[in-house]
Amino acid sequence: MQFDPSTLVYNDAGLIPAIAQDHETNEVLMMAWMNQEAVEKTLATGRVTYWSRSRQAFWIKGDTSGHTQELVEFRYDCDADAILVLVNQTGAACHTNRRHCFYRAVQDGAVVELIQPMD
Amino acid sequence: MQFDPSTLVYNDAGLIPAIAQDHETNEVLMMAWMNQEAVEKTLATGRVTYWSRSRQAFWIKGDTSGHTQELVEFRYDCDADAILVLVNQTGAACHTNRRHCFYRAVQDGAVVELIQPMD
Repeated sequence: MQFDPSTLVYNDAGLIPAIAQDHETNEVLMMAWMNQEAVEKTLATGRVTYWSRSRQAFWIKGDTSGHTQELVEFRYDCDADAILVLVNQTGAACHTNRRHCFYRAVQDGAVVELIQPMD
Repeated sequence: MQFDPSTLVYNDAGLIPAIAQDHETNEVLMMAWMNQEAVEKTLATGRVTYWSRSRQAFWIKGDTSGHTQELVEFRYDCDADAILVLVNQTGAACHTNRRHCFYRAVQDGAVVELIQPMD
Protein backbone atom coordinates (compact mmCIF):
# COMPACT_ATOMS: atom_id res chain seq x y z
CA MET A 1 0.00 0.00 0.00
CA GLN A 2 1.34 3.40 -0.95
CA PHE A 3 1.52 5.89 1.91
CA ASP A 4 -0.87 8.82 1.56
CA PRO A 5 -0.07 11.74 3.93
CA SER A 6 -3.69 12.88 3.78
CA THR A 7 -4.75 9.72 5.62
CA LEU A 8 -2.99 10.85 8.79
CA VAL A 9 -5.28 12.39 11.40
CA TYR A 10 -4.61 16.09 11.90
CA ASN A 11 -6.13 18.18 14.68
CA ASP A 12 -8.40 21.20 14.22
CA ALA A 13 -5.34 23.32 13.50
CA GLY A 14 -4.25 20.85 10.81
CA LEU A 15 -1.37 19.53 12.92
CA ILE A 16 -0.15 16.15 14.10
CA PRO A 17 2.42 15.57 16.89
CA ALA A 18 5.79 14.21 15.78
CA ILE A 19 8.27 12.58 18.14
CA ALA A 20 11.93 12.53 17.11
CA GLN A 21 14.04 9.62 18.34
CA ASP A 22 17.78 9.16 17.84
CA HIS A 23 18.05 6.05 15.67
CA GLU A 24 21.33 4.95 17.28
CA THR A 25 20.91 5.71 20.98
CA ASN A 26 17.09 5.50 21.00
CA GLU A 27 16.96 8.72 23.03
CA VAL A 28 13.69 10.61 22.63
CA LEU A 29 15.02 13.94 21.42
CA MET A 30 11.99 16.21 21.12
CA MET A 31 8.34 16.49 20.22
CA ALA A 32 7.01 19.06 17.78
CA TRP A 33 4.24 19.37 15.20
CA MET A 34 3.83 18.78 11.48
CA ASN A 35 1.09 19.69 9.06
CA GLN A 36 0.44 17.62 5.94
CA GLU A 37 2.86 19.64 3.86
CA ALA A 38 5.58 19.25 6.51
CA VAL A 39 5.04 15.48 6.37
CA GLU A 40 5.39 15.59 2.59
CA LYS A 41 8.53 17.76 2.76
CA THR A 42 10.08 15.47 5.39
CA LEU A 43 9.54 12.41 3.22
CA ALA A 44 10.59 14.14 -0.02
CA THR A 45 13.75 15.78 1.29
CA GLY A 46 14.92 13.47 4.09
CA ARG A 47 15.30 16.59 6.26
CA VAL A 48 12.86 16.54 9.16
CA THR A 49 10.52 19.51 8.75
CA TYR A 50 8.07 20.72 11.38
CA TRP A 51 5.45 23.45 11.47
CA SER A 52 6.33 26.14 13.97
CA ARG A 53 3.18 27.13 15.83
CA SER A 54 4.83 30.26 17.26
CA ARG A 55 6.21 31.47 13.93
CA GLN A 56 3.43 29.95 11.78
CA ALA A 57 6.05 28.79 9.31
CA PHE A 58 7.87 25.66 8.20
CA TRP A 59 10.76 24.80 10.42
CA ILE A 60 13.41 22.74 8.66
CA LYS A 61 15.21 21.46 11.72
CA GLY A 62 18.77 22.77 11.77
CA ASP A 63 18.38 25.40 9.06
CA THR A 64 19.38 28.18 11.43
CA SER A 65 21.16 26.18 14.17
CA GLY A 66 22.99 23.68 12.00
CA HIS A 67 21.56 20.97 14.24
CA THR A 68 19.93 19.04 11.44
CA GLN A 69 17.76 15.96 11.70
CA GLU A 70 18.31 13.56 8.85
CA LEU A 71 15.38 11.20 8.43
CA VAL A 72 16.20 7.52 8.89
CA GLU A 73 12.64 6.18 9.11
CA PHE A 74 9.17 7.66 9.24
CA ARG A 75 6.65 5.76 11.38
CA TYR A 76 3.12 6.45 12.56
CA ASP A 77 0.85 4.96 15.15
CA CYS A 78 -2.23 2.74 15.30
CA ASP A 79 -4.66 5.67 15.22
CA ALA A 80 -2.59 7.52 12.60
CA ASP A 81 -2.64 10.56 14.88
CA ALA A 82 0.99 10.57 16.01
CA ILE A 83 4.28 10.32 14.11
CA LEU A 84 7.62 8.89 15.18
CA VAL A 85 10.65 9.91 13.16
CA LEU A 86 13.92 8.05 13.64
CA VAL A 87 16.72 10.48 12.91
CA ASN A 88 20.40 11.15 12.65
CA GLN A 89 20.69 14.16 14.95
CA THR A 90 23.60 16.56 14.54
CA GLY A 91 24.49 18.27 17.82
CA ALA A 92 21.78 19.47 20.14
CA ALA A 93 18.14 18.75 19.36
CA CYS A 94 16.96 21.24 21.99
CA HIS A 95 16.99 25.02 21.61
CA THR A 96 18.61 25.16 25.08
CA ASN A 97 21.61 23.51 23.38
CA ARG A 98 21.01 20.27 25.21
CA ARG A 99 21.15 16.99 23.34
CA HIS A 100 17.43 16.42 23.93
CA CYS A 101 14.48 18.41 25.28
CA PHE A 102 13.34 16.02 28.03
CA TYR A 103 16.09 16.97 30.45
CA ARG A 104 13.91 17.61 33.50
CA ALA A 105 12.76 14.73 35.69
CA VAL A 106 10.59 14.59 38.77
CA GLN A 107 12.36 12.62 41.50
CA ASP A 108 10.78 12.38 44.97
CA GLY A 109 8.64 15.38 44.07
CA ALA A 110 11.58 17.57 43.08
CA VAL A 111 12.68 18.77 39.64
CA VAL A 112 16.10 17.40 38.65
CA GLU A 113 18.06 18.44 35.55
CA LEU A 114 19.46 15.32 33.92
CA ILE A 115 21.82 16.85 31.35
CA GLN A 116 23.58 20.14 30.78
CA PRO A 117 23.89 22.23 27.61
CA MET A 118 26.49 20.93 25.17
CA ASP A 119 29.86 22.70 24.76
CA MET B 1 12.61 22.98 43.35
CA GLN B 2 9.42 21.08 44.02
CA PHE B 3 7.52 20.00 40.92
CA ASP B 4 4.19 21.75 40.46
CA PRO B 5 1.92 20.03 37.89
CA SER B 6 0.09 23.32 37.29
CA THR B 7 3.27 24.76 35.74
CA LEU B 8 3.04 22.38 32.77
CA VAL B 9 1.55 23.93 29.64
CA TYR B 10 -1.82 22.42 28.76
CA ASN B 11 -3.67 23.08 25.49
CA ASP B 12 -7.10 24.70 25.14
CA ALA B 13 -8.70 21.38 26.11
CA GLY B 14 -6.55 21.20 29.25
CA LEU B 15 -4.38 18.42 27.83
CA ILE B 16 -0.66 17.78 27.33
CA PRO B 17 0.84 15.05 25.13
CA ALA B 18 2.59 12.21 26.97
CA ILE B 19 5.03 9.83 25.29
CA ALA B 20 5.60 6.45 26.92
CA GLN B 21 9.01 4.84 26.48
CA ASP B 22 10.09 1.40 27.65
CA HIS B 23 12.79 2.10 30.22
CA GLU B 24 14.72 -1.07 29.36
CA THR B 25 14.53 -1.34 25.58
CA ASN B 26 14.02 2.41 24.95
CA GLU B 27 11.22 1.58 22.50
CA VAL B 28 8.71 4.39 22.08
CA LEU B 29 5.52 2.56 23.03
CA MET B 30 2.70 5.07 22.51
CA MET B 31 1.59 8.66 22.73
CA ALA B 32 -1.55 9.75 24.55
CA TRP B 33 -2.80 12.71 26.55
CA MET B 34 -2.91 13.74 30.20
CA ASN B 35 -4.71 16.55 31.99
CA GLN B 36 -3.35 18.03 35.21
CA GLU B 37 -5.20 15.53 37.36
CA ALA B 38 -3.87 12.62 35.30
CA VAL B 39 -0.35 13.97 35.85
CA GLU B 40 -1.02 14.11 39.58
CA LYS B 41 -2.50 10.60 39.63
CA THR B 42 0.44 9.22 37.65
CA LEU B 43 2.94 10.67 40.10
CA ALA B 44 0.94 9.75 43.18
CA THR B 45 0.14 6.16 42.22
CA GLY B 46 3.07 5.14 40.00
CA ARG B 47 0.49 3.82 37.52
CA VAL B 48 0.55 5.78 34.28
CA THR B 49 -2.82 7.47 33.89
CA TYR B 50 -4.02 9.23 30.76
CA TRP B 51 -7.12 11.19 29.85
CA SER B 52 -9.15 9.42 27.19
CA ARG B 53 -10.39 12.01 24.72
CA SER B 54 -12.85 9.57 23.17
CA ARG B 55 -14.32 8.43 26.49
CA GLN B 56 -13.75 11.73 28.34
CA ALA B 57 -12.57 9.76 31.35
CA PHE B 58 -9.38 8.82 33.16
CA TRP B 59 -7.63 5.89 31.57
CA ILE B 60 -5.41 4.01 34.00
CA LYS B 61 -3.31 2.12 31.50
CA GLY B 62 -3.93 -1.61 31.87
CA ASP B 63 -6.99 -1.40 34.09
CA THR B 64 -9.11 -3.27 31.55
CA SER B 65 -6.38 -4.95 29.47
CA GLY B 66 -3.98 -5.92 32.24
CA HIS B 67 -1.25 -4.27 30.17
CA THR B 68 -0.15 -1.89 32.90
CA GLN B 69 2.46 0.82 32.70
CA GLU B 70 4.43 1.19 35.92
CA LEU B 71 6.08 4.59 36.14
CA VAL B 72 9.86 4.50 36.32
CA GLU B 73 10.54 8.18 35.72
CA PHE B 74 8.48 11.23 34.81
CA ARG B 75 10.19 13.78 32.56
CA TYR B 76 9.08 16.89 30.71
CA ASP B 77 10.52 19.04 28.00
CA CYS B 78 12.11 22.47 27.64
CA ASP B 79 8.81 24.22 26.91
CA ALA B 80 6.97 22.17 29.56
CA ASP B 81 4.40 21.27 26.92
CA ALA B 82 5.25 17.60 26.44
CA ILE B 83 5.79 14.72 28.87
CA LEU B 84 8.00 11.64 28.56
CA VAL B 85 7.24 8.77 30.93
CA LEU B 86 9.72 5.94 31.24
CA VAL B 87 7.79 2.82 32.10
CA ASN B 88 7.77 -0.85 32.88
CA GLN B 89 5.31 -2.09 30.26
CA THR B 90 3.46 -5.34 30.83
CA GLY B 91 2.51 -7.02 27.56
CA ALA B 92 1.22 -4.97 24.65
CA ALA B 93 1.11 -1.19 24.92
CA CYS B 94 -1.08 -0.94 21.80
CA HIS B 95 -4.79 -1.70 21.66
CA THR B 96 -4.04 -3.77 18.53
CA ASN B 97 -2.17 -6.10 20.90
CA ARG B 98 1.16 -5.07 19.45
CA ARG B 99 4.05 -4.27 21.76
CA HIS B 100 4.00 -0.62 20.64
CA CYS B 101 1.75 1.63 18.57
CA PHE B 102 4.31 2.87 16.01
CA TYR B 103 4.30 -0.31 13.97
CA ARG B 104 3.79 1.23 10.56
CA ALA B 105 6.72 2.65 8.61
CA VAL B 106 6.96 4.36 5.26
CA GLN B 107 9.67 2.70 3.17
CA ASP B 108 10.19 3.79 -0.45
CA GLY B 109 6.74 5.36 -0.33
CA ALA B 110 5.00 2.18 0.81
CA VAL B 111 3.46 1.34 4.20
CA VAL B 112 5.27 -1.54 5.91
CA GLU B 113 4.12 -3.24 9.12
CA LEU B 114 7.12 -3.72 11.38
CA ILE B 115 5.63 -5.96 14.06
CA GLN B 116 2.70 -8.30 14.47
CA PRO B 117 0.21 -8.60 17.34
CA MET B 118 1.56 -10.52 20.34
CA ASP B 119 0.43 -14.08 21.02
